[in-house]
Amino acid sequence: MKKRTEIASLGEFGLIKHLTENFDIKNKSSLKGIGDDAAVLEYNDALTLVTTDLLLEGVHFDLTYVPLKHLGYKSAIVNFSDVYAMNGQPKQITVSLGISKRFSVEDLDEFYSGLKLACDVYGVDLIGGDTSSSLTGLTISITCIGEGDQDKITYRSGAKETDLICVSGDFGAAYMGLQLLEREKKIYRGEKDFKPDFSGKEYLLERQLKPEARKDIVEILGKEGIVPTSMIDVSDGLSSELLHISKNSQVGCRIYEERIPIDYQTAVMAEQFNMSLVTAALNGGEDYELLFTVPLSYHDKISEIKGIKIIGHITKPELGNYLIGRDGGEVELKAQGWNSLSE
Amino acid sequence: MKKRTEIASLGEFGLIKHLTENFDIKNKSSLKGIGDDAAVLEYNDALTLVTTDLLLEGVHFDLTYVPLKHLGYKSAIVNFSDVYAMNGQPKQITVSLGISKRFSVEDLDEFYSGLKLACDVYGVDLIGGDTSSSLTGLTISITCIGEGDQDKITYRSGAKETDLICVSGDFGAAYMGLQLLEREKKIYRGEKDFKPDFSGKEYLLERQLKPEARKDIVEILGKEGIVPTSMIDVSDGLSSELLHISKNSQVGCRIYEERIPIDYQTAVMAEQFNMSLVTAALNGGEDYELLFTVPLSYHDKISEIKGIKIIGHITKPELGNYLIGRDGGEVELKAQGWNSLSE
Repeated sequence: MKKRTEIASLGEFGLIKHLTENFDIKNKSSLKGIGDDAAVLEYNDALTLVTTDLLLEGVHFDLTYVPLKHLGYKSAIVNFSDVYAMNGQPKQITVSLGISKRFSVEDLDEFYSGLKLACDVYGVDLIGGDTSSSLTGLTISITCIGEGDQDKITYRSGAKETDLICVSGDFGAAYMGLQLLEREKKIYRGEKDFKPDFSGKEYLLERQLKPEARKDIVEILGKEGIVPTSMIDVSDGLSSELLHISKNSQVGCRIYEERIPIDYQTAVMAEQFNMSLVTAALNGGEDYELLFTVPLSYHDKISEIKGIKIIGHITKPELGNYLIGRDGGEVELKAQGWNSLSE
Repeated sequence: MKKRTEIASLGEFGLIKHLTENFDIKNKSSLKGIGDDAAVLEYNDALTLVTTDLLLEGVHFDLTYVPLKHLGYKSAIVNFSDVYAMNGQPKQITVSLGISKRFSVEDLDEFYSGLKLACDVYGVDLIGGDTSSSLTGLTISITCIGEGDQDKITYRSGAKETDLICVSGDFGAAYMGLQLLEREKKIYRGEKDFKPDFSGKEYLLERQLKPEARKDIVEILGKEGIVPTSMIDVSDGLSSELLHISKNSQVGCRIYEERIPIDYQTAVMAEQFNMSLVTAALNGGEDYELLFTVPLSYHDKISEIKGIKIIGHITKPELGNYLIGRDGGEVELKAQGWNSLSE
């Protein structure tokens, strides 16, 4: 009998590694392939960034509470975010859709209006795609192309001992927004005249339904002349992304619980749900904030930038990856981030 | 009540036009967006080509008779073909997969072995992708990036009156291969110890299951110093693609039935199935041959190239698009090609 290895046994990152490790790079223009937020290509000394995301109904989004316009916006944003995470600028996207008969032209108009809004806000051109019928549900595949300067492109692999670990924005809010929407969906199922009450929780919903990519942070860093030593965007959870930087840079890290930026609404919601706030912030995911490292010498400069916070520092690899709790206790960081292949 | 327009009422090309006509181009680097085989980007005077394809199980492929290795190969080829159709060279691909629990790691290994073979044969690098679970079936999204010379890139829009219409290879074989596989699948359903008999029909199966992209033709044209005035690859059927050239170039065309290259096996199969051979050749699709136009002055040069055939010529737009039959009768060309959105 043919051997059967379950995909879940490898996990997403293990699977990608397994499937792609035999592929070698043949073209000089393929500067950096698999293993970062985006691939880097070099044509005539110009660096091109390429990233792609596949979003499937029922796995990545639930149309019972996600409006199609928001879905269009978010689908674009998650790709832009990957390009910013390379310290680049998104410039073009291709959008492919698989559409079941359930959807009308008006539904797609909604989706495209969100897509257009994102393209307008971020200065990105829609340049192609593919449209097809599907047997079930909605399939969205977006590829984003961007550009970056040779001396500015930032990989996951450049963090050095004593570097400061910095983040933009705050964490856990998108995850709490998702919990809230899931709860209201369950209640809704049992009631006829249901009006969900989201007052005082608008920020959580916005973070889940209409996230932004941190173009502003990349621009500020550029203006201040700061090139991070490593950078990644936080889609799978702060903890998981930090471990990517540690692994790729062959370093360790220490971050401090008390320094992790968390919004007030996130904290209130975590208490209502009786969930660990730090777990939500570390492993919730979908924050689309930037996590990056800079040399220690930038401490004062970075500290002055609004919207960026220093949460820890890089160590020697043998010191491992730890969160220092408010009580001073150390907890090893684990990648418990959202992983659609290992449930 | 909200208005509901069925997607099928617009068709694939109508839908794409409808959804994307409000998007304007904002970046200088976006040289050519939607509307050709690939988008054309310009970074530092280097032209980058981008094309993308979405393939869904049950819509684009049937795993009851398509081996996963062949599917991997073909998925890559259909994208390479789009880049060659721009007179460019494919260099990189990203591959995103949505995978249901039905699939094992070994299944994906098969798919990736086909993908790797295609990448090796065509000198293309796998540079990224996304892997996710799916609720049902297999979803494949591939984006291909290529390069082209400024003075060689060929659009659908450059055909001029009196230009010769040329094609590579032959037509209708992949379609006949599909009919054959579908027939055997139906027979198989009723029998236990079923062995399909494909002897004498190997070419048809190969054209359907393991098509090639015409890298060789692009290379020969380059060597001979011939830059086509327009070019497209034949995925939806010769007739449909020819109409794309006519429409984009604002011209008309005449092609001759007796000049359309058709393989012997295709002809035999059409007779067995009691199907019109010329319909199969014009509308079958999935041939992945190149259809292009060259100035009349290239007549002798083109005639000498093995594997390329002149099938007609470009006319004034008011003369329309016609097939001249063997009996001299004229039949207007219609786009009856495969269209996954209009059933």
